[in-house]
Amino acid sequence: MADNTFGKLFKLTTFGESHGAAIGGVVDGCPPGLEIDFDFIQNELNRRKPGQSEFTTPRQEMDELEFLSGIFEGKTTGTPIGFIIRNKDAKSDDYDNLKDVYRPSHADFTYEKKYGIRDHRGGGRASARETAVRVVGGAIAKMFLLKQDVGVIAFVSQIGSIRIENELEELSIKSVEESLLRCPDLQSSAKMEAYLEELSKKKDSTGGIISCMIENSPAGLGEPVFDKLHADLGKAMLSINAVKGFEYGFGFESAAMKGSELNDSFIKTEDGIRTETNFSGGIQGGISNGESIYFNVAFKPVASISSKQTTVNKSGEEVDLEIEGRHDPCVVPRAVPIVEAMAAMVIADHLLRQNAYTKL
Amino acid sequence: MADNTFGKLFKLTTFGESHGAAIGGVVDGCPPGLEIDFDFIQNELNRRKPGQSEFTTPRQEMDELEFLSGIFEGKTTGTPIGFIIRNKDAKSDDYDNLKDVYRPSHADFTYEKKYGIRDHRGGGRASARETAVRVVGGAIAKMFLLKQDVGVIAFVSQIGSIRIENELEELSIKSVEESLLRCPDLQSSAKMEAYLEELSKKKDSTGGIISCMIENSPAGLGEPVFDKLHADLGKAMLSINAVKGFEYGFGFESAAMKGSELNDSFIKTEDGIRTETNFSGGIQGGISNGESIYFNVAFKPVASISSKQTTVNKSGEEVDLEIEGRHDPCVVPRAVPIVEAMAAMVIADHLLRQNAYTKL
Amino acid sequence: MADNTFGKLFKLTTFGESHGAAIGGVVDGCPPGLEIDFDFIQNELNRRKPGQSEFTTPRQEMDELEFLSGIFEGKTTGTPIGFIIRNKDAKSDDYDNLKDVYRPSHADFTYEKKYGIRDHRGGGRASARETAVRVVGGAIAKMFLLKQDVGVIAFVSQIGSIRIENELEELSIKSVEESLLRCPDLQSSAKMEAYLEELSKKKDSTGGIISCMIENSPAGLGEPVFDKLHADLGKAMLSINAVKGFEYGFGFESAAMKGSELNDSFIKTEDGIRTETNFSGGIQGGISNGESIYFNVAFKPVASISSKQTTVNKSGEEVDLEIEGRHDPCVVPRAVPIVEAMAAMVIADHLLRQNAYTKL
Amino acid sequence: MADNTFGKLFKLTTFGESHGAAIGGVVDGCPPGLEIDFDFIQNELNRRKPGQSEFTTPRQEMDELEFLSGIFEGKTTGTPIGFIIRNKDAKSDDYDNLKDVYRPSHADFTYEKKYGIRDHRGGGRASARETAVRVVGGAIAKMFLLKQDVGVIAFVSQIGSIRIENELEELSIKSVEESLLRCPDLQSSAKMEAYLEELSKKKDSTGGIISCMIENSPAGLGEPVFDKLHADLGKAMLSINAVKGFEYGFGFESAAMKGSELNDSFIKTEDGIRTETNFSGGIQGGISNGESIYFNVAFKPVASISSKQTTVNKSGEEVDLEIEGRHDPCVVPRAVPIVEAMAAMVIADHLLRQNAYTKL
Repeated sequence: MADNTFGKLFKLTTFGESHGAAIGGVVDGCPPGLEIDFDFIQNELNRRKPGQSEFTTPRQEMDELEFLSGIFEGKTTGTPIGFIIRNKDAKSDDYDNLKDVYRPSHADFTYEKKYGIRDHRGGGRASARETAVRVVGGAIAKMFLLKQDVGVIAFVSQIGSIRIENELEELSIKSVEESLLRCPDLQSSAKMEAYLEELSKKKDSTGGIISCMIENSPAGLGEPVFDKLHADLGKAMLSINAVKGFEYGFGFESAAMKGSELNDSFIKTEDGIRTETNFSGGIQGGISNGESIYFNVAFKPVASISSKQTTVNKSGEEVDLEIEGRHDPCVVPRAVPIVEAMAAMVIADHLLRQNAYTKL
Repeated sequence: MADNTFGKLFKLTTFGESHGAAIGGVVDGCPPGLEIDFDFIQNELNRRKPGQSEFTTPRQEMDELEFLSGIFEGKTTGTPIGFIIRNKDAKSDDYDNLKDVYRPSHADFTYEKKYGIRDHRGGGRASARETAVRVVGGAIAKMFLLKQDVGVIAFVSQIGSIRIENELEELSIKSVEESLLRCPDLQSSAKMEAYLEELSKKKDSTGGIISCMIENSPAGLGEPVFDKLHADLGKAMLSINAVKGFEYGFGFESAAMKGSELNDSFIKTEDGIRTETNFSGGIQGGISNGESIYFNVAFKPVASISSKQTTVNKSGEEVDLEIEGRHDPCVVPRAVPIVEAMAAMVIADHLLRQNAYTKL
Repeated sequence: MADNTFGKLFKLTTFGESHGAAIGGVVDGCPPGLEIDFDFIQNELNRRKPGQSEFTTPRQEMDELEFLSGIFEGKTTGTPIGFIIRNKDAKSDDYDNLKDVYRPSHADFTYEKKYGIRDHRGGGRASARETAVRVVGGAIAKMFLLKQDVGVIAFVSQIGSIRIENELEELSIKSVEESLLRCPDLQSSAKMEAYLEELSKKKDSTGGIISCMIENSPAGLGEPVFDKLHADLGKAMLSINAVKGFEYGFGFESAAMKGSELNDSFIKTEDGIRTETNFSGGIQGGISNGESIYFNVAFKPVASISSKQTTVNKSGEEVDLEIEGRHDPCVVPRAVPIVEAMAAMVIADHLLRQNAYTKL
Repeated sequence: MADNTFGKLFKLTTFGESHGAAIGGVVDGCPPGLEIDFDFIQNELNRRKPGQSEFTTPRQEMDELEFLSGIFEGKTTGTPIGFIIRNKDAKSDDYDNLKDVYRPSHADFTYEKKYGIRDHRGGGRASARETAVRVVGGAIAKMFLLKQDVGVIAFVSQIGSIRIENELEELSIKSVEESLLRCPDLQSSAKMEAYLEELSKKKDSTGGIISCMIENSPAGLGEPVFDKLHADLGKAMLSINAVKGFEYGFGFESAAMKGSELNDSFIKTEDGIRTETNFSGGIQGGISNGESIYFNVAFKPVASISSKQTTVNKSGEEVDLEIEGRHDPCVVPRAVPIVEAMAAMVIADHLLRQNAYTKL
């Protein structure tokens, strides 16, 4: 029960329930002297928050962020950065009828098995609201990475069975935020929107895939055995609510390929030695090789659907369940900044870990 | 560079290079009083070792395991269990010609970027030989889990593009070891064998998928935020050499599904409350729910192929490379015990972590 | 720079500077279902706070504690307990003249060497105000320990060169809080008060020793090698501001003793096997033996004295320094609850760590 | 039960019992490219080993060290350094009569309370033989520190009640190894020898104090809250067998001193800003200030004395105990290299931790 900290040198600790007083976090191990762009952080939070479009839940989380420590005259001091986001629009009574019900594919049952007690209001600690804290931590990591010229960009590449066809190189990053669904292929985006409207009417939901790229990561990040760079990225992604799978480079597809097709030969270039192709996804033997890192994250459909479902309550009695309120038919667009945040924290952490051994 | 330890309470530390004096490990945090079945451990090692069949490399690693501590009169004492496996069949001279060459899709280049120095013989620390140590740690974890009635079973479900068609429930576990390739669907296994023979002739290689099931895991394991049970399983799997992807439950497929299709309703049964279906893969909100846990692990083709490849050496000069010796056309069958070992250690660790809070 | 977390299973993360918006913390890994006595926690904070008597600084820290998460309907839920204490009486301008001055035996100089930047107001992160957060964490640990019948009691045993003469057994715990200085030997307490009044007039300060006892700790706590119970207690104490030494059992005195004098023989009693004497201080081989654990913690005099001192500023220019405001002539009485808090967290952590392996 | 690893970046894991097959360890996180001086390491082991003089036990531990990994062509590679020392002179039968006896002030009783099982031969895991592994880890840390011009030197400053009178500055480091007892004040050394001879005849033992200095440590090491440099040094020392106390700077003495006496003023020197005096012991606010770090470690008398003692066995029956064989009347001289080893590992770890944030 002591797992609410992520990272080894660049660390984030999170706390807070959906309908408690506040959620918050502590970033520990951020380098000192980093200038903080508060607007940037708020903007990252806004990208995650519900109510951005007709496809996201109308709950007005204000996400008003307050920093409490670790920043002095606009710069980090190297001491822990504590921050909170108060929970404002919390109508706990809405949840009284769910107090004893085990919602299908939610964490109600497992929390009770684990703890013997739970804050049932709005999913409590299991609510995706916790990820707002990760977005703050990730925004700070991104600012640090930016100083090192490293960029982290994610986008929606699949919703339901609609998948973008383009190769990574063909996509324009600018297009990501042009799409309501954060899908840079605007044609696919339009199809996805139509599909989600249809699902909304049917009170149903669907999943999707987010793709992420890390540009300009230096070579040498990641540890060769247990803390392989992709293993830490994978854990980070799998820790996000509703994620069911992670793959990097050619991922699951590579299972069916041949070594002769997939091997990346080294060549000499003006920038030094590089790989001719990048089928490996920028990581070899668990360590970054200086090429772009790319990976996919699979999300299941939201478990909260408004159509009627049958389940049981604590006493084992069958109950019919209609989850009230409007819910996102698909959380994937809002999860884009969360994927970026977790990726940024992993890279920041490994940058510091590798830096511990350089220029000695 | 300090990442060679895995786990929080049940921990494994590994050391050793392919062609050094020995590889070895330390299991720290194993419960005291556990009876050790040495034959079982050796058998697990045998399942991983090369030279088992015509599809595995003929190198005769003896894998003679020596325990050095932590076991007294056949039982664990609760103190760290140190063990080594000497490297015997180590012809380092074979590798002299590879000293300065960056083999395609190997870790030669990235190790040098990270450390500035490397033991090039046989892949050094990056060699899959390191995983023998994990199999020993996993075997001890399995014995502990067995006492708790928890079983961990993995098998090959895909090689190249040949995939078993059966549902999980239809498969007979006994069939796994009947198949040379550890594929319990013997018809598929035969097709895979034919495919591998063909690849061998072409000096090429392929990848595959291993599926794993954890039976009878108690509910309540896993931590709800960062150390979600599937996040720790995912990291464990992604830390295995050549793994490119991890998914649990319906994984990547769930991205295209609807909430109404995928939700697992709770029902009352003679065994208490359970889920009617198990699309979630035995884990909800990061915590086990008492149903079977199942997941897939994707392996890329072996990078070591005998056909001629072009790459560069340290100085950036183009070199033609023909990797000598016979190499597995597909490592996936030998990786089955490694997948089981890592899974067993994750579950053992989380069992202890949860037990810390029970019966207080 | 990532060290603001203490403990392995029962963990406390702290953040906050003396004159920032707030200080706060996160208790992670507290067992679920623990009833929280908020008055008890506030009372512990009051015991630490300045302005309790003429011997403590008059700054009115209100120490108004707000819990933000992890407690539901008065009980812990097993999720992280976040809390903050706002900084109210913060006149930062008072500190402007100290911005560039390195106060003697303060952390001004070392923070700047470490971070290259610092929040100079009131000592920033180095202020003892940070320990209020520890007192909250410790109060929660104490409530957990109380349920296990374990008690943690500290008191002042020396101030300046005035030392209590009594044996531990002769002291009445009730007397601790009867003494303004938390010294249960009221005669010594009176002498200490007189001495401190005298020092106050001379604008000087002095140190002291706090003794601590842990009663009824079960046998078996502590790990035999690096995490010996007394090693973790020692680290906990040495992490408190102004602490210069730690000893347990007969401590430094035992250096001059003989084995024949100091060995604790085992005897059979109605309560089972116990030691006849308890010179060891309740810990043998790093593991508690069920007897009372006792140790001493040495504090140096407060570095903030009002008499004139000479030092240099950032540019190396000599400056005369008169630290304004009234400062405690001796912080030791206020440090009593901090010592208890840190001890309680160490014992709670080790209780959980040992419990992970019991009743399996 | 998972505590056999020390350090965060520079880490040592140890395993092994006194009378098992071997003891050994893994150094993980040592910087790559470090040249290894094997004679130096062996010499450090020799300084610790029994049988060096008439004052140390005659058991001939050969301490033949074998490195198994992590070193290639005489240099560290950045991968884990595994090593073992076989147990040769192990007459386990000698210990059969002690199988069920709880020796006074030994760890027999507490191990059984903790684990329910123990390897009783020669103290098993609780034997000080485990510290040989620490000496190896420390020797590697020392070589790394030497490259950074940091020196770690310890010596005996007290045995029984005989204490050296000299100030630290007056002592010649060369004299340390000239004294059989590693006491650089040769007059005191002679008195100590006489005292130990006397104790030997009486089959008794005594304790002592080791003082340690770290020279030329850069400023900025240590973390300001929980991982204060002196807190980590304290934990390291308290984890050594038989240690009962730790103090740094003026330690316990400072409790009786005044702020005006003890404050270290800053002055400008040719080397930049330094402190005029060094009463703080080189650490302020938990962070090194560039001055010499010095501390004392108190050891209790050896519990193994040959004179007759009374105690009980497992069943609670009173037994008379005469521990056979000759035992050191005082272990303190042999503990000097252990103190140095632990100190060196703490400094190496903090050097890397601080370096992670420099030159970014």
